[in-house]
This record gives sequence, C-alpha cells and structure tokens, in this order.
Amino acid sequence: MPERITLYTAKICPYAHRVEIALAEAKAQFTRYEIDLQNKPEWCPPSRTVAQTFPQTTPSPESVKLAESLVLVEFVADIFPESGILPKDPVQRAKARFFIEGVSSKLIPAWYGFLLRNAPVEDLYSALEYLQSLLPAEGFVVGEFSIADIAITPFLARARLALINDIGKYPEGEGKKIWANITSGKFARIGKYAKDLFARESFKVTFDEAHVTEALQKLFANLRSQ
Amino acid sequence: MPERITLYTAKICPYAHRVEIALAEAKAQFTRYEIDLQNKPEWCPPSRTVAQTFPQTTPSPESVKLAESLVLVEFVADIFPESGILPKDPVQRAKARFFIEGVSSKLIPAWYGFLLRNAPVEDLYSALEYLQSLLPAEGFVVGEFSIADIAITPFLARARLALINDIGKYPEGEGKKIWANITSGKFARIGKYAKDLFARESFKVTFDEAHVTEALQKLFANLRSQ
Ligand SMILES: N[C@@H](CCC(=O)N[C@@H](CS)C(=O)NCC(=O)O)C(=O)O
Ligand SMILES: N[C@@H](CCC(=O)N[C@@H](CS)C(=O)NCC(=O)O)C(=O)O
Repeated sequence: MPERITLYTAKICPYAHRVEIALAEAKAQFTRYEIDLQNKPEWCPPSRTVAQTFPQTTPSPESVKLAESLVLVEFVADIFPESGILPKDPVQRAKARFFIEGVSSKLIPAWYGFLLRNAPVEDLYSALEYLQSLLPAEGFVVGEFSIADIAITPFLARARLALINDIGKYPEGEGKKIWANITSGKFARIGKYAKDLFARESFKVTFDEAHVTEALQKLFANLRSQ
Repeated sequence: MPERITLYTAKICPYAHRVEIALAEAKAQFTRYEIDLQNKPEWCPPSRTVAQTFPQTTPSPESVKLAESLVLVEFVADIFPESGILPKDPVQRAKARFFIEGVSSKLIPAWYGFLLRNAPVEDLYSALEYLQSLLPAEGFVVGEFSIADIAITPFLARARLALINDIGKYPEGEGKKIWANITSGKFARIGKYAKDLFARESFKVTFDEAHVTEALQKLFANLRSQ
C-alpha cells in the first residue's frame, strides 16, 4: 500500500479526471498537483497522468511512479477496496471492463474526430448507440456506480460543455443541437445516464465547470478558422 | 463462478490465444470451440472472442456471454485466483497493466502496420524498444509470469512465424533479418524474453505452429503482389 499518493493532474484532462473521481469515491487522502499542460515542468513524465507514493514537490527517484488513467483507476480500486468501484462479482467486473473497452475504442476516437476534425457526427452517434445498448434499463453500467462509469464521465462532461458552448471544428451553431440529439429521443437512455453521472458527488467535487469551459475555449477557439 | 466455460476461439487469432494461455495457466476445464473466421457460423457474435458459461453447441440465450481478450484474461484471473497470473501486489498489478497498455497502443498497431501495409519498420523497433525498457533485468514483466506476458506472447509468436517465413507486405527477403534484429544486439533483452515466453508450458500447449504458419501463408500470401 502506498503510504502517500500524489496525483499529477490537470483540470482540463478527461483522463486524469477519471483518477480524481476514483480517489473521491475512495475518500482517499492525496496531494493534488496541478500541471499546466501548455507549460509542463521539466520533470513531468512523458506518460502524463502520474500517481506517486512518498510525494515531494517534484517526484523523488525512489517513489513508485504509475501512469495511464485506466491503470490508475484500477489501482485506486485495488488499494481502496472499500470504495466499492470494482464490482465484486467477476461477471459484473468483466461487463464493466467491456464497457470501458467500448469507451476507449469507439467513443473517444469518435468524439475527438468530431470535435477536432469535424469528422462525421454519425460516428459519434454510432458509438453512443453502442454504449447505450450496453446500459441496463436504469442505473449505472453494472447497477452500482463502478470503474465503467468513471471511465466515461469526464468525456461526457467535456462533450456537453464543448457542445452547449458551440466549441469545436464542426459548423457553427450545431453544438447545442447535437447535445440535445444525444440526450433525448432515441438517446433518452444516454441522456438519463449522463444526468445520473453528473449528479454523482465524486464528479461534482472534481469538476470545475468554469475552469474547463474557459480552457476548452482557449484550446479550441481557433479550430474553426483553421 | 461460471459452472462451465466455452471458449469460441480460432488458432490463428492472437487475441483469442491470450485467453487460451490464461485458461491453460489456470488449468481450467473448458470446451474449446474452433471458429472458422473465413466462414463464421451465423450465431457467432460480432464481438469475436467469446467466453461463455453453460455451453451448448451454439450459445444458449441464457448463458452469460463475455468478449474482448483482455477482459477475458482478467476474468480468468478473477475466477481462478490460484492461477497466479494476476499479481497480488497492487503496484505490480498496475505495472503489468501498464505494460499491456503499451502492447495495445504501440506494439500491435506497429506490427500490423508493418505486416499488412509495409509501414516503416522503425515504428516496430520503437514499440519494442519501449516495451524492452519496461522489462526487468531478467524474468517476466513483473518477475513472475502474469497477464502482462499473456498479452504479448501471441503477437510475438505470430510475428516470429511471419518473419522467419517471410510472410507480409514488406520487401521479400527482409523477414528473417528483421526477426534477427529484434531479438539480438540492442534487442537482446527482448530476444531473451521471447525465448522465455515461448518456453512457457501454457504457450506450448496452446500454439499449433504448423497450423498458424499455414493460416498466415494463406491469409497473407497475396499481400506483396497487391
Ligand atoms: N492514455 C493516457 C492519455 C493521457 C493524456 O492524453 N493526457 C493529456 C491531457 S488530456 C496530456 O497529458 N497531454 C499533454 C502531454 O502529453 O504532454 C491516459 O489514459 O492516461
Ligand atoms: N479487441 C478484440 C479483437 C479480436 C479480433 O480482432 N479477432 C479477430 C481474429 S484475430 C476476429 O475475430 N476477426 C473476425 C471477425 O471480426 O469477424 C479482442 O481483444 O478480443
């Protein structure tokens, strides 16, 4: 067990946000170190999100350094079993991980494709339709809140902010409509699911909406004119 | 716990092979159902590799169906803890999963790029150099044989067969040289690691070298002339 954890993170980053949600679910004590991604400190590892034991202001050579958001979320679940984010039943656990695989291989590429390159919005719709098909009639992916929900929440939250503020490479004025499309009608189940995710305490205390909105504006303001 | 497991698999498939190695490590009883990927049965799910409980010749509607090789390897580790393939220590576990992430995001795309499209062999070298840098001085990824080694073995084994038999889109005659390059000199550590992996009993009993060689020949024989 790590005696102390330092998380190198950035409020804008959806990957790092996963780890913050997991730590909040675990009610874990940790030191939060905000990295300016536009101006990374020299010692900042190329592998980006880092949870570290025996913290100092800069990571000490003896500390254990771990990276990759999904690895870290499982790590948090392992060291804080009382967090309950890893389903006890192996079948439920496999279902949670299968959902995460869909987030990684389908939703994230489709979302960034649409946001950054105005790739067909249909790819985003397909990815969401697929994930929606994995959801139970109500509640979270495997009933109780789990690593599966943690993996998707930061992306849905940022997609919502980008879309309702019309930030992205896609045609001006489309954002709000697309957010409405993917949360109602045939996507009503995703809409309800997103609402449940955004109401989760561990999300609310780890998401700085004003900061992320501003950061998204800054990062992607010029996309459309490029 | 599943009363019975059926694995829908194909000898050629490196992903499905992971699950077979995991089941062999666990000394698990299961029904092995070979799928002809060129001629898939109608009921065969689009999600490809499938482990299933309560088997029948075709999957029954009531059975639990799980897919995705890495999810299944973790599932096997969960239901057969005595297999020892999931490190007990959370830090070692995280290191194993971090290695797997590198296999997924770096090695597999570089290998298929090279094999199928003659993408720069340097990408393959970089991916291997990266993974080699994660290996300890000797032994497996986290010392004892684990899910990390299971994730890479089927790909290294098929890469070896393709290269020593000169199968692929890359220039004729290059295969043998490249296999030599990536297992000696600055890749000596990977070479030794591959030897250790190929000597593992669970690999040997699950790898039909003659069958896979022939299947690779058939699948990729015409790549060079295309
Ligand atoms: N696969 C990584 C992705 C992390 C990632 O892409 N982080 C971005 C910010 S959202 C980053 O650190 N970018 C800055 C950099 O790479 O220097 C994970 O899941 O942790
Ligand atoms: N991400 C999947 C990949 C599995 C995969 O690509 N399997 C291939 C054979 S190697 C397959 O089933 N192809 C036939 C098909 O998709 O119909 C996993 O890890 O299980």
